[in-house]
Amino acid sequence: MKLYDLELSGNCYKVRLFAALTGQKLDIVPVDFLNGAHKRAPLIDLNPFGELPILQDGAVVLRDSQAILVYLARKLGDERWLPRDAAGEAAVAQWLSTSANNVQHGPADARLVDKFGYALDKAHALAQSSRILGLLEQHLAQHRWLTLGHPTIADVAVFPYVALSHEGGVSLDGYPQVRAWIGRVKALPGFVPMPGV
Amino acid sequence: MKLYDLELSGNCYKVRLFAALTGQKLDIVPVDFLNGAHKRAPLIDLNPFGELPILQDGAVVLRDSQAILVYLARKLGDERWLPRDAAGEAAVAQWLSTSANNVQHGPADARLVDKFGYALDKAHALAQSSRILGLLEQHLAQHRWLTLGHPTIADVAVFPYVALSHEGGVSLDGYPQVRAWIGRVKALPGFVPMPGV
Repeated sequence: MKLYDLELSGNCYKVRLFAALTGQKLDIVPVDFLNGAHKRAPLIDLNPFGELPILQDGAVVLRDSQAILVYLARKLGDERWLPRDAAGEAAVAQWLSTSANNVQHGPADARLVDKFGYALDKAHALAQSSRILGLLEQHLAQHRWLTLGHPTIADVAVFPYVALSHEGGVSLDGYPQVRAWIGRVKALPGFVPMPGV
Repeated sequence: MKLYDLELSGNCYKVRLFAALTGQKLDIVPVDFLNGAHKRAPLIDLNPFGELPILQDGAVVLRDSQAILVYLARKLGDERWLPRDAAGEAAVAQWLSTSANNVQHGPADARLVDKFGYALDKAHALAQSSRILGLLEQHLAQHRWLTLGHPTIADVAVFPYVALSHEGGVSLDGYPQVRAWIGRVKALPGFVPMPGV
């Protein structure tokens, strides 16, 4: 299984982290992101969105970090990470949307501005960061894990850019429950960090 | 099964549309959105994000339109809408992320500005709309449906805000493949419209 990867991408890290937590072997292919290799052939043919990560497993090619987590969880066949019953699977799916939407356009966008110079609206990203961190703080005051009472791919999907908040100028000082949850994720057997985490 | 609903919300419409396509009965509960009923008890306790739709099915409460589609597809037990194999499920999951991210922050945000007066960056929403519509146009030139060669919840998730693009000042004139796909969705047995579609 090939992962077209950028070490500094939180979305790529999601995949590396989940593979590490579950003992799945990935063939990591570093991509020359700064020179735009992801915007040219052959990668643009694998992912017309021109983004990383991309997972290639034989004929299967996937372009979205949440979808790749779903794929790896199903391949693994361990329902603790992604249940098969309607209610459990949907409970996880809620947080996959939160990752793709609120986390991406909060702390992840703030970091894109500060760390990579993207021309995004920083004030908007900071406001979105406050909103999602406030919601997470409130939620994690009642729950040890995002859903189902144990670690799932929901935690893996939301973790990277929350743990990288400081790289977008977002402090977690006011969010002790979020920090405690970050600590619990870091204590999972097999956990691997990335630069900044 | 109760759907806390706003008729003019494309996210609520996703759920109504999928229920109609699959013959599932929903008890529609209209929410007084303009007066902020979704931001107060009892709804804020069902969904701390303060958003619609919310699905309540006995003890199951779900807050995200993509997750609700996953739930309804699994309850229905028809794998054509959401496969159980790793590759098929992940192929659909990619487009659920695209719906939660690119479609939401493209045509849906543009419509929030024009139709509901939200203080979002309209130019950014228009640029994001062009990007995702261009990607859809290119994809749909090769595919009749978003993935797997037949209708799935991926199509249902992406359809509403694409079909409502004109309400955010986004023309589909330059996207004939997208318009043809909209026509195919509208021709599905059981299809129901919403205002503007």
